[in-house]
Amino acid sequence: MDIDTANRTAVEQMMSARPMLTGLAPARSVIPDMKDNLILHAGPPIEWERMSGPLRGAVIGALLYEGLTKDEKGAVAMVEAGEVEFAPCHHHGAAGPMAGVISASMEVFVIENPTHGNQAYSTLNEGYGKVLRYGAYSEEVLEKLRWMNGSMGPLLKEALEQTEGLDIRALLAEALHMGDEGHNRNKAGSLLFLKLLSPLIAKVAKDEALEAEVLQFLGDNALSVLNPVMAGCKVMADAAHGVEGSTVVTALARNGTDFGMRVSGLGDDWFTAPAEIPDGLYFPGFSSEDANADIGDSTITETAGIGGFAMAAAPAIVAFISGTPQDAINATLEMYEITIAEHDHFTIPSLDFRGTPTGIDIRKVVELGTTPRINTGIAHKEAGVGQVGAGLVRPPKAIFEEALIAYAGRYNL
Amino acid sequence: MDIDTANRTAVEQMMSARPMLTGLAPARSVIPDMKDNLILHAGPPIEWERMSGPLRGAVIGALLYEGLTKDEKGAVAMVEAGEVEFAPCHHHGAAGPMAGVISASMEVFVIENPTHGNQAYSTLNEGYGKVLRYGAYSEEVLEKLRWMNGSMGPLLKEALEQTEGLDIRALLAEALHMGDEGHNRNKAGSLLFLKLLSPLIAKVAKDEALEAEVLQFLGDNALSVLNPVMAGCKVMADAAHGVEGSTVVTALARNGTDFGMRVSGLGDDWFTAPAEIPDGLYFPGFSSEDANADIGDSTITETAGIGGFAMAAAPAIVAFISGTPQDAINATLEMYEITIAEHDHFTIPSLDFRGTPTGIDIRKVVELGTTPRINTGIAHKEAGVGQVGAGLVRPPKAIFEEALIAYAGRYNL
Repeated sequence: MDIDTANRTAVEQMMSARPMLTGLAPARSVIPDMKDNLILHAGPPIEWERMSGPLRGAVIGALLYEGLTKDEKGAVAMVEAGEVEFAPCHHHGAAGPMAGVISASMEVFVIENPTHGNQAYSTLNEGYGKVLRYGAYSEEVLEKLRWMNGSMGPLLKEALEQTEGLDIRALLAEALHMGDEGHNRNKAGSLLFLKLLSPLIAKVAKDEALEAEVLQFLGDNALSVLNPVMAGCKVMADAAHGVEGSTVVTALARNGTDFGMRVSGLGDDWFTAPAEIPDGLYFPGFSSEDANADIGDSTITETAGIGGFAMAAAPAIVAFISGTPQDAINATLEMYEITIAEHDHFTIPSLDFRGTPTGIDIRKVVELGTTPRINTGIAHKEAGVGQVGAGLVRPPKAIFEEALIAYAGRYNL
Repeated sequence: MDIDTANRTAVEQMMSARPMLTGLAPARSVIPDMKDNLILHAGPPIEWERMSGPLRGAVIGALLYEGLTKDEKGAVAMVEAGEVEFAPCHHHGAAGPMAGVISASMEVFVIENPTHGNQAYSTLNEGYGKVLRYGAYSEEVLEKLRWMNGSMGPLLKEALEQTEGLDIRALLAEALHMGDEGHNRNKAGSLLFLKLLSPLIAKVAKDEALEAEVLQFLGDNALSVLNPVMAGCKVMADAAHGVEGSTVVTALARNGTDFGMRVSGLGDDWFTAPAEIPDGLYFPGFSSEDANADIGDSTITETAGIGGFAMAAAPAIVAFISGTPQDAINATLEMYEITIAEHDHFTIPSLDFRGTPTGIDIRKVVELGTTPRINTGIAHKEAGVGQVGAGLVRPPKAIFEEALIAYAGRYNL
């Protein structure tokens, strides 16, 4: 078995996957094996008892949103009575930012990859302030979810029916030339998303006030494209998964307690270790004392060669996450050391249009002791407070070492 | 008289000017001294006999568009009979890209500067292909002008009435963090413009098909914000004009034959010399043999501290105008040598958020022999062919020398 050939196959499949946003539908109607009492969450599997504050808050919020219970106490009682099932988004072809909670009646974007025939799913992005993904579940949060799923959702669904699909890979490629890195900074990508959607929305909208509200919401939310981008990265990473003998990472994901990883040639096993507190800039009034451990499936962006790996494309991001523009360039340069390829489609103008570092090789990570650089939002450790900052984090080294040991065992090396 | 103090005053006024896009109206109703038989054009004054192909073509197109004549022959006859008057856009508070032609019934954006109380005007941008600004005047060109001014215009006008004004300086500041330089690359700025306009359009649109068409047109045209940006730079540059003793440049403009300049402390005189052929990348099938001499008022962007002066913010532009990302950084660094200030509002992330080089000092240009770097589109030298490339150009040194001599004469130095 030639590991390098296997890795080249995996990364070629990752890069040739072509995520197309083709529609919007309720989770229960499109996500495989979705059920009314199933809550999907970010990161590797975790039971209620070990869930962090923001993930618990988002679970409570989802049960309230679904109308399965009336209040927080009822939600906790349901969970403790074993009436609620939990599973990672990743086990159901989905990816969710921060807590990453998806429940049955939430609308999800459908991303199809015509090159390899796989799909992925993600919810609508909630924007800023008190939001479910940071574990908030007040009436204000639920009200916004109802508006997003009940009012904006049907309009977006009808708009998307006017097209053959929106090319998320092309959108990302363009956004990287416009100062985005695709994870923490999606300003340009969200505007490109608005540009693609707005004429489609205009064609189908009946209610002018709702139309104006939706265009305003999408335009004001510089993360509006984050969720479809994550599902886009998920179909790319999944296309690289399951290549016999490959040491390429195909999922990095955090549930707020554990950091988990999957590797192409190692089946569906998760390699996990405790998630760390990100380093970064905190909003006024908050410090690292308030921070929850690293959380969210958005590390699927780094897995697919963007996010922290494309920092050099996004010098303006340092005002948000700390550091200097030179640090941003160095972050990308460092990631070339632990990856297999330079991306065919995602290029960085300031590095003479070099492709982004793509396809993390667990062998290189262990050999060099250099772990992936991840851009991330930082959640308050208590449910319902919300975002307290943004910064940088790295996965624990232990998961790469565990994976390499498992690899040696599986392939009798 | 302290020249440095005068220059500091001029550049402070340039930077504190705050261009607000407040509306859209027919040129005849808002541009001072506009008349039905007056054609405004880019650059310094020029008579018909000396006009280049693209400017002549645009004049013919405007006379046809106004219905003042039936065909090209009739247009030329009118001009030769002295029935048409010409004046620079700059003499009427306006700025026009390439040929820069404005006629009485064209809709123009109104930009107000509440800081100093001055205004400026610019037409709607036509997008790509056969367009009046490159001297094309076929029926297809006139049809598009009729649609823009007769269908899109009223919708934009009504949309703009829903707001107190759109802050063009803030838009530019953000666009410079998104890979634009504001002259040849306005991808991000045009999307930010769409973001601001789309909810306003949705509120007032009655006709869904027109609304969809307008949103599509604005979104597909990565230059849609260029014209209001130029008028924005015009109010900034005008705010710096007329400071006694100042050697700061307040207008750089080309009519396709001559390159003209105005200086803050030298009144309304133009210093002119023959315009040069830009260096750049040509579209397939064209070469510098086909190029017209440098044309357009868009050099008002460099005058105000963006465009070629902000190249370091826009590394991706080199794929369009030639050169490397390092050349783009060097272009900006070179411009610090001939300017008075670093802009308070326009900053460049990759240069550690340094302000753009702002306020060209004719003394420094002459002393160092370094002329301003200008990004530009390249027009075919024959009327009606259109754009053949994009590239870089510099003003002739002679105009800075002439201006310095005039300065010495005026101020008895």
